[in-house]
Amino acid sequence: MKRICLIGSGNVAEAFAVALGGLHPAGRFRLGQIYARNRARGAKLARMAGCDHTDDPAQLVPADIYLISVSDTQIGAIAENLDFGNAIVAHTAGSVSLNVLPDRLSHRGVFYPLQTFTAGRRIDFRQVPLLIEGEHPDTAAALRLLASELSDSVYEVSEQQRAQLHLAAVFACNFTNHMYAIAQELLAEKGLPPQLIGPLISETAAKALGCPSAAAVQTGPARRGDRQTQQKHLGLLEGHPQLQELYQKISTEIWETSKKI
Amino acid sequence: MKRICLIGSGNVAEAFAVALGGLHPAGRFRLGQIYARNRARGAKLARMAGCDHTDDPAQLVPADIYLISVSDTQIGAIAENLDFGNAIVAHTAGSVSLNVLPDRLSHRGVFYPLQTFTAGRRIDFRQVPLLIEGEHPDTAAALRLLASELSDSVYEVSEQQRAQLHLAAVFACNFTNHMYAIAQELLAEKGLPPQLIGPLISETAAKALGCPSAAAVQTGPARRGDRQTQQKHLGLLEGHPQLQELYQKISTEIWETSKKI
Repeated sequence: MKRICLIGSGNVAEAFAVALGGLHPAGRFRLGQIYARNRARGAKLARMAGCDHTDDPAQLVPADIYLISVSDTQIGAIAENLDFGNAIVAHTAGSVSLNVLPDRLSHRGVFYPLQTFTAGRRIDFRQVPLLIEGEHPDTAAALRLLASELSDSVYEVSEQQRAQLHLAAVFACNFTNHMYAIAQELLAEKGLPPQLIGPLISETAAKALGCPSAAAVQTGPARRGDRQTQQKHLGLLEGHPQLQELYQKISTEIWETSKKI
Repeated sequence: MKRICLIGSGNVAEAFAVALGGLHPAGRFRLGQIYARNRARGAKLARMAGCDHTDDPAQLVPADIYLISVSDTQIGAIAENLDFGNAIVAHTAGSVSLNVLPDRLSHRGVFYPLQTFTAGRRIDFRQVPLLIEGEHPDTAAALRLLASELSDSVYEVSEQQRAQLHLAAVFACNFTNHMYAIAQELLAEKGLPPQLIGPLISETAAKALGCPSAAAVQTGPARRGDRQTQQKHLGLLEGHPQLQELYQKISTEIWETSKKI
């Protein structure tokens, strides 16, 4: 039985707390403790996971794997002040190098979940891609074993691949969500309820997931080079010069992409 | 029993053919005929709907409601050449005025489904918002009655509201799909499978649908003003000056939107 210690109490840590807390008690891994400087959040996550919580570095329990799930800029400083013994220490960030972990550690790794996590929202962790990196092959192997207990989608990737995945995630998640926000703002302007656009959001995602290439199923005025409709839309956006610019830019990109495929 | 005639054979017409063909035989409306100049597609849709097909204007059957579901620029010309008697004639386009239908018609209307339709993809039509407009109240009432037989989501909207909905749909569907396409292109560049981003696409849509405002659940480096990660991402996009520009533009918009809410 390998002991896990989870460090952090943000949304990613919460998702790990729930997933690790749900491991079979007789299985190969067990979450022993959550270390978090935020006592209220740490205690909450520990309750969710059914384990202990501490905010005292001196009370950190010995473990086989420490997962550091804190904000990108805090990883190095927090790791510096904790005694991990000879354990594996992995952070869970997408765009941060393994080298932010202190040099003195001999089993450094990364354990990055490619998903957007929201406090209080339950998701199926077995569907979450877990991207693994280990400074040494044995570290990667141990992290891969833990990952496969949590998810059906485990990949070993290089730092460069992981950084690219994080960048792609910004487009697929953050920028996509901003497109939804713009659509809802446009509806609100004309007194229309935001839910009207819901079935379209659902189907657009479902359609893209059902085919290997989103570019191949692109539709709309930009895709078919329908200048007349585009002009109408730019007219409607007259009070929003920044949205006009965005509309033109993305439309041009869609048109140029469509010529390549 | 009111008779419906469907004109057109594109993706929107196909969705209507399936929905209208699925109406209860003893109900208030029945699809009698599909008129389409593309014989192969017209015949296919008629088979799907279980009705007749013609490509001969002289064979157009009398009906109570004609739905014209052809490309935006063809609506006027096609309507000009057909004899609709005294029936209701409605087009199904989002960004086209009711006035493109010939003046001689006395019961003009619009019957716009706010959804993206793909040939061969089945969707639950009862979830599709149907946006109704009628030149006269009785036309709107008749179209609303038909719409409520097909969908649970029926709204009477003005031409201006409909145009705005169509514009919002471009952001929520076409532009969103392009964000997916960019993400997949970035993965492919580093030899990563496009499906890796699938769970994130799903969850981003599900999360936005589960709350009244997408802007309120925005996450990511742009939302939290994380310049360091943004600089890394711009570095990764060095070979893609247009994507760099898009990245900066959308990030700025997200940051500015977050200050407003």
